[in-house]
Amino acid sequence: MKVAVGEPCFRVRGYRYAGVACGLKESGKRDVALIVSDVPARLAASFTTNVVKAAPVLIGQERAARGWAQAILVNSGNANAYTGRDGIATARLLTRHAARLLKIDPELVIPSSTGRIGCPLPRQRVRAGVDDAVRQLAADGAARALEGMMTTDAFGKFASRRLRIDGREVEIAGLAKGAGMIAPHMATMLAYILTDAAVSAPALRRVLKEALPSSFNAIVVDGDMSTNDTVLLLANGVAGNRALTPRSRDFRGFAAAATDLMRELARMIVKDGEGATKVIDIAVRGARSQRDAERVADAIARSPLCKTAFYGGDPYAGRVVCAAGYSGARFDPGRLDVYLDDVAIVRRGVEVVRKVERAAARIAARDEYCLTLDLHGGRGTARRVTSDLTVDYVRFNSDYRT
Amino acid sequence: MKVAVGEPCFRVRGYRYAGVACGLKESGKRDVALIVSDVPARLAASFTTNVVKAAPVLIGQERAARGWAQAILVNSGNANAYTGRDGIATARLLTRHAARLLKIDPELVIPSSTGRIGCPLPRQRVRAGVDDAVRQLAADGAARALEGMMTTDAFGKFASRRLRIDGREVEIAGLAKGAGMIAPHMATMLAYILTDAAVSAPALRRVLKEALPSSFNAIVVDGDMSTNDTVLLLANGVAGNRALTPRSRDFRGFAAAATDLMRELARMIVKDGEGATKVIDIAVRGARSQRDAERVADAIARSPLCKTAFYGGDPYAGRVVCAAGYSGARFDPGRLDVYLDDVAIVRRGVEVVRKVERAAARIAARDEYCLTLDLHGGRGTARRVTSDLTVDYVRFNSDYRT
Repeated sequence: MKVAVGEPCFRVRGYRYAGVACGLKESGKRDVALIVSDVPARLAASFTTNVVKAAPVLIGQERAARGWAQAILVNSGNANAYTGRDGIATARLLTRHAARLLKIDPELVIPSSTGRIGCPLPRQRVRAGVDDAVRQLAADGAARALEGMMTTDAFGKFASRRLRIDGREVEIAGLAKGAGMIAPHMATMLAYILTDAAVSAPALRRVLKEALPSSFNAIVVDGDMSTNDTVLLLANGVAGNRALTPRSRDFRGFAAAATDLMRELARMIVKDGEGATKVIDIAVRGARSQRDAERVADAIARSPLCKTAFYGGDPYAGRVVCAAGYSGARFDPGRLDVYLDDVAIVRRGVEVVRKVERAAARIAARDEYCLTLDLHGGRGTARRVTSDLTVDYVRFNSDYRT
Repeated sequence: MKVAVGEPCFRVRGYRYAGVACGLKESGKRDVALIVSDVPARLAASFTTNVVKAAPVLIGQERAARGWAQAILVNSGNANAYTGRDGIATARLLTRHAARLLKIDPELVIPSSTGRIGCPLPRQRVRAGVDDAVRQLAADGAARALEGMMTTDAFGKFASRRLRIDGREVEIAGLAKGAGMIAPHMATMLAYILTDAAVSAPALRRVLKEALPSSFNAIVVDGDMSTNDTVLLLANGVAGNRALTPRSRDFRGFAAAATDLMRELARMIVKDGEGATKVIDIAVRGARSQRDAERVADAIARSPLCKTAFYGGDPYAGRVVCAAGYSGARFDPGRLDVYLDDVAIVRRGVEVVRKVERAAARIAARDEYCLTLDLHGGRGTARRVTSDLTVDYVRFNSDYRT
């Protein structure tokens, strides 16, 4: 665990945090996190599109529709997924309990869970955790809250940005967890983006909508989409600026900062991908359409063969070209260029890596590099960030029963 | 290599085989195979749907459209893929050379290649291999031909069936290679099904079309579809029966035998999946449509998390339910049943494995078992056969550069 309690960590005005242990994790580590805004905050949210949704996601969707939140109650160690009506009742009961202690409307408490699925979430334990968490809320508690969110994460993910809006200094900060879909049964990507800026509801929804495709929706660890994935964006307005609207002069700057922050968090999740040793940026351009570009980028980002080749440091393009070929996108293989960073390894459909083998091998051996495909067939572009598939990934995900 | 020359092997009347080494494989193993029918045979064929098609596939498609073949010329060690116009010229030249030696029409020679992609296929070497192969053609040469087709296969795949049609005894036999998309760059599934029955062109196409969905199109090793995949079904009519048509009394029996044979070969490919230790049959029923059933089965068969769970012998359904959830199929998670063989681990959306943990763990520890999902939402069904994802798969596919 690289996030130690007491480590320097961000603060955002008007938010307090807590992280406590209530006994869900056998290790005894923190497993309950609470994030509270001093005042109700505007909320924009995005949840997993998996048909099988965890109880907290079902409740979160319902509450987020109203566009406001004041607290986020998270537990790790148990996903409260595939737990039927009891699971929903438990999530309602726990958020109601938190609301009572915080003296706020229960509808303003958004629940999240991550961890093992198919096991009832022990109500009494988490209830006691909520009691502790409310007592320990503090403006400098973000690192503890992060710990309370983590499952198999090797490190907590947080990032922040500062900018001026309407003459006021405002902050945006994000806490995230995720490291692939994880042991013991699966896990989850959770991200909470907090700002003290005042932002109108449509502006906030637009920021989230614009930022997701290139951040959390552009990352692939193993291609498995969890039952619990949740991204929440809260704006509590404590900074005192006039509320940003999509037409405000400063809207673009705010949206750009939020996007950049979310990309940074998303990249950290890939970097922490289970067993991952590399982060590969996949850029596709020249596709007939954006959809076709995404098809090619997704096929490569998910292909076990490409991902083991990344692991092995293979500078050859065969597997990549093959994955592009079966992606469902239409293109002329005879016009394809492929690059490792700025070194062309395929030109107009012909493998030329032999001529640049040393340079290409040097790039393929790096921890991070960019793999670019130019299909020369249109203006569609897409980007993905993926990890390599390693021996440790398999060990990790197959051995948890022992 | 478990297929030794001289091992007992099938014969089918009117076919001869050869397998020789021409130096494409550094190991010095056989790398050219030739299969020849004494007379032109009716042909039905299926090729990869990958946009990037190897040279032999492009030529094979063209020739197969005429519905006849008399020889199959295969090389391993080099896929002749992503080799541009030169690759196509090479494949034409080599099949023309074989045709000349065999004294048959070059259009009746179907080429196949498997092995490394992006490298020119050395013409002179393979040409010399063809010379040797033609000299060594023999009715009992199938095991040698199989060797000549193999790349990373741990064993050769062959199977045969015998049945009576129109009062005559006829034989169907199949040779196949494939073990996932493979080192050095990728490899391929090749399968040649030979029969001495007389079968009309529409009947033969129908047999292939009916057999593929439950055989070669139902298997998943890593979900990567090669540039070279080829299935050929030849019927040379030497058995002397009246040509089977789709209306013949014996058509169903013949189609069933061919399907069964192809399933057996396909299953062997999964069993030989790189690093695989298990073969899992995935059966989905009760989907809203067949397409939805296939979506669920494919998502599970391809999920790295499910496949590492199979490897680890995990009897829990969390990852499986999750993969079904993101498959794109619509279903009510609250009605889902999941079985390991005949033991229910999820009933009506509730994980019940704890009550049957011993029995479930015993099944999950087996080399082969069936995972069944009943969505209780319609009449759509699908089956897939998949392997587990193991530490050896990753080692194998990442280490080939060393």
